[in-house]
Amino acid sequence: MDQQSPQLVDTLISARWIIPVRPENITLENHTIAIKDGVIIDILPSDEASDRYEATHGLDLPQHVLTPGLINAHGHTAMTLFRGMADDKPLQTWLEQYIWPAEAEWVDETFVHDGTQLAMIEMLRSGTTTFSDMYFFPNIVAKVVSDAGMRAQVSFPVFDFPTAWGQGPDDYIRKGLNVRDDFKHSELVNVVFGPHAPYTVNDDALNKVAMLAAELDTNIHIHAHETQQEVDDAIASTGKRPVERLNELGILGLRTQLVHMTALNDDDIQLVKESGSHIVHCPQSNMKLASGLCPVQKLLDQDINVAIGTDGAASNNSLDMFAEMRTAALLAKISANDAAAFSDWQALEAATLGGAKALGLDDQLGTLEIGKQADIIALDFSRIEQQPMYQPVSQLVYTACGHLVTHSWINGKPVLADREPATIDIAEVQAKARQWKEKINGERR
Amino acid sequence: MDQQSPQLVDTLISARWIIPVRPENITLENHTIAIKDGVIIDILPSDEASDRYEATHGLDLPQHVLTPGLINAHGHTAMTLFRGMADDKPLQTWLEQYIWPAEAEWVDETFVHDGTQLAMIEMLRSGTTTFSDMYFFPNIVAKVVSDAGMRAQVSFPVFDFPTAWGQGPDDYIRKGLNVRDDFKHSELVNVVFGPHAPYTVNDDALNKVAMLAAELDTNIHIHAHETQQEVDDAIASTGKRPVERLNELGILGLRTQLVHMTALNDDDIQLVKESGSHIVHCPQSNMKLASGLCPVQKLLDQDINVAIGTDGAASNNSLDMFAEMRTAALLAKISANDAAAFSDWQALEAATLGGAKALGLDDQLGTLEIGKQADIIALDFSRIEQQPMYQPVSQLVYTACGHLVTHSWINGKPVLADREPATIDIAEVQAKARQWKEKINGERR
Repeated sequence: MDQQSPQLVDTLISARWIIPVRPENITLENHTIAIKDGVIIDILPSDEASDRYEATHGLDLPQHVLTPGLINAHGHTAMTLFRGMADDKPLQTWLEQYIWPAEAEWVDETFVHDGTQLAMIEMLRSGTTTFSDMYFFPNIVAKVVSDAGMRAQVSFPVFDFPTAWGQGPDDYIRKGLNVRDDFKHSELVNVVFGPHAPYTVNDDALNKVAMLAAELDTNIHIHAHETQQEVDDAIASTGKRPVERLNELGILGLRTQLVHMTALNDDDIQLVKESGSHIVHCPQSNMKLASGLCPVQKLLDQDINVAIGTDGAASNNSLDMFAEMRTAALLAKISANDAAAFSDWQALEAATLGGAKALGLDDQLGTLEIGKQADIIALDFSRIEQQPMYQPVSQLVYTACGHLVTHSWINGKPVLADREPATIDIAEVQAKARQWKEKINGERR
Repeated sequence: MDQQSPQLVDTLISARWIIPVRPENITLENHTIAIKDGVIIDILPSDEASDRYEATHGLDLPQHVLTPGLINAHGHTAMTLFRGMADDKPLQTWLEQYIWPAEAEWVDETFVHDGTQLAMIEMLRSGTTTFSDMYFFPNIVAKVVSDAGMRAQVSFPVFDFPTAWGQGPDDYIRKGLNVRDDFKHSELVNVVFGPHAPYTVNDDALNKVAMLAAELDTNIHIHAHETQQEVDDAIASTGKRPVERLNELGILGLRTQLVHMTALNDDDIQLVKESGSHIVHCPQSNMKLASGLCPVQKLLDQDINVAIGTDGAASNNSLDMFAEMRTAALLAKISANDAAAFSDWQALEAATLGGAKALGLDDQLGTLEIGKQADIIALDFSRIEQQPMYQPVSQLVYTACGHLVTHSWINGKPVLADREPATIDIAEVQAKARQWKEKINGERR
């Protein structure tokens, strides 16, 4: 091939700013990303891009910033249909008087289908391209995600007790592994173990999860240390702190994501560090339910990987990862009594590369680097609310809300353009959300 | 007049939902607000409104919610031009190495003019109709506010030391009272005393402020108890806690707004309660600078009035009162270790009626009631991010960002329509913000 003739690629995206997350703390100006077969093959100054590449699709965003697609590392996606149904209640009241009864009454395949689609649209429209889910009917979640061309870690739940989706540990595990088999060739969906929490799964079942996860090289996603009460109750009933018990049962490890992780002492942190487990921090949910504080800066100082999740919309009440990043950065400072704790750069990294590491996907996702999958979002930074623009990363973390996201790509394919989802029918999903509200509200009054 | 013939009014606004704040905890559905001469003269079911009233202007908002215009009870408006200039720095470093040098170099009448306009557009576009400002060149602030038809309490600063706007206490007070005279007939601008903080104003000057404020029936707006360090330093240098000293100097009282108020003990709270002083809570600034926690629920339990402020954009970094309300509600719960603390209704009340009480304007503002000034905002609640709509107030506090605000009125006059400011030239202000960025950045590098 003649050296002068441009190389053919699928897509070229040019933008005023690009924050690639790696190299660290760098903002590129007037650069272009070249994408071929879903993969980033080059990032170069825009004035060189037109000589080097010819593209089937081109998009010029002269007032936008591009970042890696955000990774929402914990949620109960379908619970978006319960958004705002019960607020300002203590955790146990909220669970026992509102959420569990509502789940018992309403959660079925249709609920999970409609609720997951509702959540996916909200996530796409606020910059999330990959999410981690833990909910009933993971078979439906996996299918809905796959159909929409979105990316997800779908954890199947394991409980000691029966629910709408299973009878007990063995039943949940058997059904979950079937879903895993159905999606084992999926590029987008990764089905993993989701033992609900230390206090809802017995030793034998946790041990079985640990063994199977190791054998199948599969992730484990588990709530742990959500409240001081959980820790106190665990000590009273098992004689061990939850993390200590999880460690003894083989649950901790490089493939394990520990969600919430408040009320940690130095021994807990040491166990997490030695095991290589990942932390998923859900600041808004922890605040709203008065659960407790996750010591983010202390964990980072120990080189423990921290990801960020919104938790379900029933306890947040939005799935906007920009609000979550900001809250994470603000909460870390007041908790650590140090305004330099958990900087804007660190918050963005947790919401991108930190999430990718937690999900075991950092070879493919989490940064904008040559060789990685093209999961990219664009935010409109022309608005007056983002002026003056001294530091785009500061605007991203401290002033943006998800509404600024205009475009996103997953595996190089457009999934959001001018805020319109490309792969899910927004009008249909919105109509269904309204029907669910009428049905559920009708029952409650 | 024939009983059948409709009454002529200036404006009728009909909306799907109206949250009037008073009566408490009520959401009206399909109601209409009638406005005449800038005042709310009726709120009635929309299907009765067309028979009863004929309007010069009418607006039908079938998917919107109306609330009182928000009151941002503390800020340094012009500092919006320093937004994102210095993040993630401890308070003293931030002040001494970044903010004070930048102020010394850049703050003049033009800076204050341009920065205040920039902030006002952001505030209008995120639902604030009234704000409280404390900054240099209050003469400029007052004029810019008045020209834009916005509403503000403009406090003139008082310091022991010279700044760009004054030489010392007597000079600040003299200049400030001149500004007060210039605007004493303004319907929109209220010029008040703004002694900066207990540690920057001496006893004699504070005493003089207290006496003059009482004599002139004028408000006092002052930072106090921003950090534990401030309290410790005060005890070391004066032998008294800041609130104790302010009380002895006559500063506390029904006309006084105490901003920040972290590190409070029971005696402090008792002094605030007995004096009838108001608290202005700035949660995002307190978190970002790791200043401390204001015990909001404890103050409300003592019947102390609490308002909410964003503080300046240099330490927040946005002026979005919806983000501030949500953070206030979330932070109060984790601080009080009680998920029922500071509910969505309480957060909305603090951002409306609480602000009006603090500013001494609750006879005119803070609720949508007959006889009050028509300061009203409308938010588009048709979006998928607000579905399902079980409780509009929950969506307002826990899911909204300022971007949902589409319209606002001050004294019944439209100041924002379809997100476009009606009284300030947004393109011109944006261009100036970019010029300031080039100038300030040029100097810094």
